[in-house]
Amino acid sequence: MQLIFDDEYFMRKALNEASYAYEKGEIPVGVVVVINQQIIARGHNFTEMLNDVTAHAEMQAITAAANFLGGKYLKDCTMYVTLEPCQMCTGALYWSQLSHLVFAATDHERGYRKLGGQLHPKTTVKSGVMEEEASKLLKRFFIERRNLN
Amino acid sequence: MQLIFDDEYFMRKALNEASYAYEKGEIPVGVVVVINQQIIARGHNFTEMLNDVTAHAEMQAITAAANFLGGKYLKDCTMYVTLEPCQMCTGALYWSQLSHLVFAATDHERGYRKLGGQLHPKTTVKSGVMEEEASKLLKRFFIERRNLN
Repeated sequence: MQLIFDDEYFMRKALNEASYAYEKGEIPVGVVVVINQQIIARGHNFTEMLNDVTAHAEMQAITAAANFLGGKYLKDCTMYVTLEPCQMCTGALYWSQLSHLVFAATDHERGYRKLGGQLHPKTTVKSGVMEEEASKLLKRFFIERRNLN
Repeated sequence: MQLIFDDEYFMRKALNEASYAYEKGEIPVGVVVVINQQIIARGHNFTEMLNDVTAHAEMQAITAAANFLGGKYLKDCTMYVTLEPCQMCTGALYWSQLSHLVFAATDHERGYRKLGGQLHPKTTVKSGVMEEEASKLLKRFFIERRNLN
């Protein structure tokens, strides 16, 4: 069997991370960072458990990937994230000079395209990869939360 | 002698933090977070030492203040920061629902007003407090850096 390392492959890994967040009662967003077809960082949203609004999946993955690479910049890296980044994470990605951003679901309310954040001019963007799966997980989470309250 | 806890008083504390960054070779930006005239968090830029683009003064102070308060939100808090926040930090402040932001120098290139970030609608903003001192420190830093290279 040959594994095909395409966008779906890596987004599935990010969705896996999102499912860990879901199981912990966190808004289910997951991320992986890839260089040369190798995952060098994983993360999921941790804001509730850490009581920290800065603990988004992307923020942790940026820090982890930079640690792995031994440098601040994520050149030649691709970030796969299950939800469109917010302006905080977009700002962090701007500083990181990430090469490629791939995200699944669109965040119509708090996404960077709605609130006006800017990625680095060198960053390419692809959206909608496995959007349905990512959206389904998010919707299920919010419906369950609503029913709890 | 009576101490007057006004904006200049707290911005001076933030400038103090910025001077620690300067001494460590970091871009000199400092911050304090205040509630009921009490400083509950301090921070300065740490991106070089940590090799981490997310280690801005404000990000660390948001995390520290939330830890102190035992909750994610910085309601009734004032952040004093020596430079206009970037879009990453502005995005983090948006999530934190900070009540008041006071900053010193304007960042004409990477400030949130230039790059398009949005604070929380409840956050009030005051700028220009001790702007000259903050700008002087930043300018001195960048001139020295240039001369080193």
